[in-house]
Amino acid sequence: MVSSSDADKRDTESPFLAALANQPASRVPVWFMRQAGRSLPEYRALRPDGSILEAVKNPELAAELTIQPVQRYGVDAAVLYSDIIVPVHAAGFGVDIVPGQGPVTSQPFREVADLSRLEHFDADEDCAYVAKTVQLLKGELQVPLIGFAGAPFTVASYLIEGQPTRNFIRTKKMMHDEPDLFGALLARLAEITIDFLGMQVRAGADALQLFDSWVGALSPREYRRYVFPHVKTIFDAIGTFGVPGIHFGVNTSDLLESIAATGTKAIGLDFRTELSLAQRRLGPDMVLQGNLDPTVCLCGEETVLSEARQVLVDSASTRGYIFNLGHGVLPETDPQRLLALVDFVHAEGNAIRQVGLEGS
Amino acid sequence: MVSSSDADKRDTESPFLAALANQPASRVPVWFMRQAGRSLPEYRALRPDGSILEAVKNPELAAELTIQPVQRYGVDAAVLYSDIIVPVHAAGFGVDIVPGQGPVTSQPFREVADLSRLEHFDADEDCAYVAKTVQLLKGELQVPLIGFAGAPFTVASYLIEGQPTRNFIRTKKMMHDEPDLFGALLARLAEITIDFLGMQVRAGADALQLFDSWVGALSPREYRRYVFPHVKTIFDAIGTFGVPGIHFGVNTSDLLESIAATGTKAIGLDFRTELSLAQRRLGPDMVLQGNLDPTVCLCGEETVLSEARQVLVDSASTRGYIFNLGHGVLPETDPQRLLALVDFVHAEGNAIRQVGLEGS
Repeated sequence: MVSSSDADKRDTESPFLAALANQPASRVPVWFMRQAGRSLPEYRALRPDGSILEAVKNPELAAELTIQPVQRYGVDAAVLYSDIIVPVHAAGFGVDIVPGQGPVTSQPFREVADLSRLEHFDADEDCAYVAKTVQLLKGELQVPLIGFAGAPFTVASYLIEGQPTRNFIRTKKMMHDEPDLFGALLARLAEITIDFLGMQVRAGADALQLFDSWVGALSPREYRRYVFPHVKTIFDAIGTFGVPGIHFGVNTSDLLESIAATGTKAIGLDFRTELSLAQRRLGPDMVLQGNLDPTVCLCGEETVLSEARQVLVDSASTRGYIFNLGHGVLPETDPQRLLALVDFVHAEGNAIRQVGLEGS
Repeated sequence: MVSSSDADKRDTESPFLAALANQPASRVPVWFMRQAGRSLPEYRALRPDGSILEAVKNPELAAELTIQPVQRYGVDAAVLYSDIIVPVHAAGFGVDIVPGQGPVTSQPFREVADLSRLEHFDADEDCAYVAKTVQLLKGELQVPLIGFAGAPFTVASYLIEGQPTRNFIRTKKMMHDEPDLFGALLARLAEITIDFLGMQVRAGADALQLFDSWVGALSPREYRRYVFPHVKTIFDAIGTFGVPGIHFGVNTSDLLESIAATGTKAIGLDFRTELSLAQRRLGPDMVLQGNLDPTVCLCGEETVLSEARQVLVDSASTRGYIFNLGHGVLPETDPQRLLALVDFVHAEGNAIRQVGLEGS
């Protein structure tokens, strides 16, 4: 275990936490969504095929998988090895993750009676293995640990559809035609999420990211009416936990002002939205994270670094800025590319941002 | 055949063409992307299972399928029954449409030599059946006929990936790592597209829509660099054809200013982007089309009309406005919903827009 003074030092000197506090960072911090995962040979060596949920329930393994990318890449933050459906699985809803497919349930959420399947959840009790993983990690890591959870809409979409979906047909039908039922589901998921996130903070998580990955499937009007209140409840709670929160979603360009209004301190952007434009729209108090297209990381190193340079230039006007991809690392990614990327961002990030600022 | 004076009358009195000319329309014009399709029982009755390309090659059948939704719904425009891969299929590239899956090729575009598979294309010769369908329709229709084509990026993505894709990995890799090859492919597809669209206009099409459905998979920087020049070439050509052009794509919110710079007269928006915001960004000269979420049309009639009302209110500040969905009609859609929607837009559209304008 690090001593508390070591921990304090780590926190105050962490470029990731500095940027997340909207302060200048000694170097541009960088981490990757899904940095722990199938793109790493050491990950594939440790984790047998089968549901990710089994690995999550094994604290020693989950901690090791969390640490692997920190050791390999030298990223500025670790992100807990877990999954957005962990708490609803732990509540006993009956949902699993099918490798290569995603979250699947044979009994989707369809009616009021299904709310009872989410009735019993106590994060400390039902997800003790997650707390244990966090505690193990806090004794090992020299960088901050990001805890996370799925947001109500995104988790609800899996429960309602029963499988990954393209058009969110059943989800949107319920949202519009049975708004009370949909609202009750999202409210319950918000409660579960808050409990789950609070537990991670008590166990030692230094920051929290809320994945509302699929919320960009909604129009701004739908988001404000049916989803925003529940996300705001979660960020209100995060505010009381004493750690910074980050919101992430794909295709959220039209939702950014609404997402900012949830109270999140930081927004992770996918690769579609230019950082400079988001900065102008959201103002100087919002920390931004992103947004290199993960597909670019499958290209040659020259392309990867040249595109990363463009992202850094585009980030120049944003004070609190964290480099990341615009979505998760693709399994086909060559770890050498990400290593070169981290080295590049660390070595040249602040200089490029400075030039970008002077050039703008 | 209608006489030329009838045709003139139809054109000048067409609410669709008036709106597309950015003029006030006697009623809010409405049509639906994929209005001809599996959601209609009369369509399913006429078309056997199998590739849509066979139906497209049968002018009498294709004309009948084009007319069906006009007769049933009373929409303000017909859209040619065709597919975005028709011209590359006709060029002999070797691509087909697998029902329930989409465009598929067993020999994807991978190298310079594959350009020869697109070398020979003459729209008049290779797509004579399309011209014949248009000519048949012009003798039957009382509303304008929209011709269309797929845009270079979207068509290229099918040719490069070999099948529908989620991440456009191979497409983006080629774009970044082999920009000359990618550029040559898009340039050739632009030539084919221009030939194909020009032929439709010569046969009688009254307006053209360019489907760059998947271009929202790109960042604005990628779009401007690798795709914009080819789309601009197409809209430059459409400008010489003497008919108005419409651009459509999904997830294009971050690209709108670039798309406007292609010279298109009108932009079709998906349901994510608010019409009023697009209007402010693009100015009073841009005609807008859209953008009710097609998934909403699977909900109850009350929901459909209430959401349509919101779209109409949101359109109030846009002078030239065409009601449409934010993407194609879903096969599961009950035609009764679309009929109610057309009646509603026709009966109340202009009044709702007027109130919206006064309220803004």
